[in-house]
Amino acid sequence: MTIESTMQHGQLGVAAILRMALRHGTGSDVISQRKGRRSRTRLKSCAERALRLGAALMAQGLRPGDVVATFCNAETEHFEAYLGVPARGMVLHPLNLRMHDSDLADCLRVTGDRVLILSREHLARFASLAPHLAETALELIVITGEGPLPACAVPVARYETLLSTAPAELPGDLPDVAETAAAAICHTGGTTGKPKAVVYSHRSIWLQALSLTAANSVGLSRRDTLLAAVPLFHVNGWGLPFAAVMAGANLILPGAVFRPDVLNAFMDDCDVTVAAGVPTIWTDLMELRKTAGAPRFRTLARLATGGAVVPRALSNAMAEQGVEIIQAWGMTETSSMSVLGRIEPDATPGLGAPVPVGYPMPGIEMRVVDPDGAPLPHDGAAAGELQVRGACVARCYLGAEAPASFDGGWFRTGDIGRIDAQGRILLTDRLKDAIKSGGEWIAAPVLEDALRSLPGISDAAVIAMEDARFQERPLAVLVCADGRLPDIDDLRLRLKSLVPSWWVPDAWSLSATLPRTGLGKPDKAALRAQYAAGALALVRTGAPQHPTNDTPHSEKMK
Amino acid sequence: MTIESTMQHGQLGVAAILRMALRHGTGSDVISQRKGRRSRTRLKSCAERALRLGAALMAQGLRPGDVVATFCNAETEHFEAYLGVPARGMVLHPLNLRMHDSDLADCLRVTGDRVLILSREHLARFASLAPHLAETALELIVITGEGPLPACAVPVARYETLLSTAPAELPGDLPDVAETAAAAICHTGGTTGKPKAVVYSHRSIWLQALSLTAANSVGLSRRDTLLAAVPLFHVNGWGLPFAAVMAGANLILPGAVFRPDVLNAFMDDCDVTVAAGVPTIWTDLMELRKTAGAPRFRTLARLATGGAVVPRALSNAMAEQGVEIIQAWGMTETSSMSVLGRIEPDATPGLGAPVPVGYPMPGIEMRVVDPDGAPLPHDGAAAGELQVRGACVARCYLGAEAPASFDGGWFRTGDIGRIDAQGRILLTDRLKDAIKSGGEWIAAPVLEDALRSLPGISDAAVIAMEDARFQERPLAVLVCADGRLPDIDDLRLRLKSLVPSWWVPDAWSLSATLPRTGLGKPDKAALRAQYAAGALALVRTGAPQHPTNDTPHSEKMK
Repeated sequence: MTIESTMQHGQLGVAAILRMALRHGTGSDVISQRKGRRSRTRLKSCAERALRLGAALMAQGLRPGDVVATFCNAETEHFEAYLGVPARGMVLHPLNLRMHDSDLADCLRVTGDRVLILSREHLARFASLAPHLAETALELIVITGEGPLPACAVPVARYETLLSTAPAELPGDLPDVAETAAAAICHTGGTTGKPKAVVYSHRSIWLQALSLTAANSVGLSRRDTLLAAVPLFHVNGWGLPFAAVMAGANLILPGAVFRPDVLNAFMDDCDVTVAAGVPTIWTDLMELRKTAGAPRFRTLARLATGGAVVPRALSNAMAEQGVEIIQAWGMTETSSMSVLGRIEPDATPGLGAPVPVGYPMPGIEMRVVDPDGAPLPHDGAAAGELQVRGACVARCYLGAEAPASFDGGWFRTGDIGRIDAQGRILLTDRLKDAIKSGGEWIAAPVLEDALRSLPGISDAAVIAMEDARFQERPLAVLVCADGRLPDIDDLRLRLKSLVPSWWVPDAWSLSATLPRTGLGKPDKAALRAQYAAGALALVRTGAPQHPTNDTPHSEKMK
Repeated sequence: MTIESTMQHGQLGVAAILRMALRHGTGSDVISQRKGRRSRTRLKSCAERALRLGAALMAQGLRPGDVVATFCNAETEHFEAYLGVPARGMVLHPLNLRMHDSDLADCLRVTGDRVLILSREHLARFASLAPHLAETALELIVITGEGPLPACAVPVARYETLLSTAPAELPGDLPDVAETAAAAICHTGGTTGKPKAVVYSHRSIWLQALSLTAANSVGLSRRDTLLAAVPLFHVNGWGLPFAAVMAGANLILPGAVFRPDVLNAFMDDCDVTVAAGVPTIWTDLMELRKTAGAPRFRTLARLATGGAVVPRALSNAMAEQGVEIIQAWGMTETSSMSVLGRIEPDATPGLGAPVPVGYPMPGIEMRVVDPDGAPLPHDGAAAGELQVRGACVARCYLGAEAPASFDGGWFRTGDIGRIDAQGRILLTDRLKDAIKSGGEWIAAPVLEDALRSLPGISDAAVIAMEDARFQERPLAVLVCADGRLPDIDDLRLRLKSLVPSWWVPDAWSLSATLPRTGLGKPDKAALRAQYAAGALALVRTGAPQHPTNDTPHSEKMK
C-alpha cells in the first residue's frame, strides 16, 4: 500500500502574503516620503489598495501571466504594486532606474510588458525613454501623484484614477496563484554585459520572505520597524517588502533618495529597530551622526548590510552603539540575501583574511568546487568557486535554459570562497575581481578596504596588470583627499601592516574620482580599459618578495 | 507570451533537513539521557547514523513509501529515525506509548508497518503487545541498546547491528524526496473515540520547521539550546527536532521521564535557552526550584508551552526570572504549534475570560464561523468556531477524504474563539467535550461510557474541575440504580481496566437524575454551575499517577 500525505494543497505565494496584510494589517504601518513630506499608512489600507490595483488592471483586460513594469522609487504605490500585481497572477517587473534607455526598452520588449507604473518624480527621465516605447507592447502608462499628464504615444492615466476603476466587489478570499508561476522579474547588475533576467516564482518569494524572519537571518518580527534603504528594483528590494508583511513589521520606504540626513531622520523619528542597505549608506549616516556628537540610537538593534565588504570603521562604530551588524551575501540569482552572519567588533577582515560571511539561509545549500567542477572538502581550507542551490535560487536566466552559469542544478556564483566544517561560508573574492599573482589570489575588495583605511586616501580600486613573472599584479587607483598621491614608500609600509606584503601593489595611479557602475560599485571594467589604453598615469614601485612561487598550493588554482 | 519562472525545482523536506545536519552538524549537539546517564553527540554524528539507518533499512528490502514504526522515548536513536527514515522516502510512524495494545496493533495494521524500532526500556511493555503482532505486517523489530534480545514471533535485531549492515558507500549528496510525499504519521489524541491518523508531508514538516525559527514564533537559532520536554510521538515532538536542525540549535531529548529534577538538571548543566513542553511540567519544575531557594535561571530566555492554559502562577514566576513565555495553540491536524503569542506578566486570563493566544504562524490562516459555517467578522467580538488552513494543516484523516472535520479547505478545530482586527486569535472554549489534564486530553464521552458499563451505575456525566497542578481533573456525576454510590475503591479498580489510570476521576458525586439539554444530552453547563455553586456533594479520591511528569511512559497506560 502507499500512504498518501493528508496535508492541504495551498500554494505559497504573494496572494497568501497579501491575505496576511489584509488580515493582520491594522497592526503595522507603511511609512514613506515624497519631496520631503512623510506619509504613514496602515498596512491594511495599502493591502486594500493593492487589491484594488490588481482588480483595476484585470478590468483593463490584463490576464494572469501579463507583465506590469514599474519605474518607481521606494514608495507606497510601488509597494502596492509589489503585492497587488502578483497576487492576481500578473508579473511584476521593477525596472532598474539606473539603466540606459535602450536597455530599459529592451527589458520592456523582451517580456512584452503591457502596463508601466511610473513615479511622477521620474517624468523627466521618462521623456528620454518615450521615443523607445513604440518598440514595446505597452498599452498603458500609469503615473503616480497629482498633476498634469504628459503627452505620449501610449495612453496615460493617473494611478488614483486607475484604482477608482476597480470593481466595487473585490475578492474577499483572494485565491492562490500556482506557486511555481512567475511572480516578479529582476535583472542582474550587468557588470559583464547585457543585464540578464531572473524570474522569481511565487514560491521563491514566499520562502525568501519567511527565511528573512528566521532568528538566524534578519529575524524580522512584529516588534520591528524596518528601514529598507534599498531600491525596490534591486532584487525585489532584497525581498524586504514581502518579509515585512510576513513579519507584521512596520516598513519604511525612504522614497527617491537615500541621503544620510533623510535616513537619519527616519531613525530618530520612527523608532527604527532594523535597517538594511549597502555599507556606504551607513558609513555616511554614521559620519553625519558623528558630526552631531554621535548621539546613541534609541531603538536601532540590527543593521543588515551587503553588496560590499563592511568597513571596519562602520562595524566598530555600530558595535559601540550596541547595534548588531548582519552581513549578507547574495545575488539577483539567489533572491538576494542567502548567506548571513553576525560581525563581531574588530572582526571585520582587512588583513588578508577571508570575509567570514556566515551561514546559508534555510533552504540554501552551498558547495565549493575546483576549476574542473569537482566538489572540494568543507574543511575551511580548500578554496574554490562557491556554488549554490535551493528553492530561492535561479536554475537559468529568462530565455536561456542551461547557460554556463548553471552547473547541473548548482548556480555558479563566480565567487571564490571556502566552507568550514560547520557549514560556514568564507568569501575570498569575486572570480572576475580577483588578482591571480603567482598562482595565488589577491582579494581586491580586501586590499581596497585596507587602502581606504590609510590616511589621505578617500577611495580606492584595485585592478590586475599583466605581469611577465607573476601573471598578474595589482595596480591601485586612488582618490586622495588633497588631490595628490601620498608618499608611496610610506603608503607601502603602512599597507604591509594590514595585508600580506606580496599584496602591496606594484603600481599606483591618482584619480579625481572612480568610475561607477549602475549599482554604484567601482567600474573595474572601465578602469581596466583606461589602463589598457595607457590613460592612467602610473607610479611604479615593482613587485615585492612573493611567497608562493615555490609552494605546491599555487598549482591548485591556476 | 507566458513568462515562466526561472527558479529551481528542489523539494522541501526531510532529506534537505538531513543534508543541513550533515553540512552544519559539527556546530551543534544532541543531548539525551538514559537510565540517569547523559550522552552528548555531535549533530553531524547523529546525521551520519541517520543516513546509515536509512541505508540499512533499504538494504533490508524496504522501499520508499514503506512505513517504519517507532516505540521510543525522547532519545537519540528516535531522533536518528526522525531524520533517517523519511530522508530515504520511507514513512516514520511514532507510536503513542500511552495507547492500549489493541489500538497500537490497529495503528500498525492500518498503515502496514514493516519495521518497528523499539526502545529497550519498553521491552516489558512490548511483551503485552507481542500477542497482537501476528495481525500486523511487521517483518522486523529493532531494539535499541545492549543486552539480550527477546524471543518473538517476528525477527528481532539490535539497532546497532542493523546500522552495521548499511552499505559502506552512503549517498553523498542525498537526493530529495517529492515534497508532497508522506513523511510521518501521527495520531490524534482520540478524544472522541478511535485515534485518527494525520500523515505529514515532507513539505509540511519543512515549512513547520522553518516557521519555528521565525522571530515571531519560537525564534530558534544557532545560539539556542532547546530542551524539548515533549514526547516525540506527540505531533512529531511538536516539530521541534526538525526545527532544531534547521536552526542549528543544540537539542536536548530528555529520555523516558520528564521529571522536574531531571529537567532542572538539564537547565543548569546544559545552558538551556529555550524549553518546550506542557505547562504542568514547568509548574512542577518551578516548585522544585522554589524549594531550592528559587535560583535564577542562568541562560533560560524563552519557554514555549501549549496544550493547556498557562497558569498565572507559572507565567508570573517565569516573568520574575526574565523568561519570556510563548503560549502556543495547535493540534495534531495543524502540525502542532500554529498560533503563538507572548504572555505578559499578570495577563493570564481569569476564569471565563478568553485566552489571548496570539498570532497565526506564517502560512497558517484562520477564520471564525457561525454554527451554519458562515464566516464571522474579525472584530474581536464575534465568537464562533475557529477554522484553520495552510500548508501545515491536514485536509483529511488517513482513509477518509472528506470527513465532517473539514469544511471546504478549512479544518474545523472544534474550538470556539474570536479573531481581532490585527488577526490575533482569542480562544474562548472547547467545542469538544474534553477535559485537559496536565496537557493531555481526557475524553469525557469515553469515560462516561466506561462508567455506565460498570455494575450499579445507570448514568454518568463527567465534567472538569479546576486543578492547581493539572489545570483540569475529571469529576464524575453518577446516577446509581440503588440510589447510593457504589464502593469507590472498587469503582476505581474496575475503571482502570477500561481506561488509562490517569483518566480515573478525582471526585465523585451522586445525583438522582442528570439535568438534560433540549436535545436530551446531559447538560454539562448546568452541572458545572452546580459544582461552582458548591451544590454537589463530593467524595474526593485525589489524582492518580499522571503520565506527563512523573512516570515513565511505559507505565502510563496500566
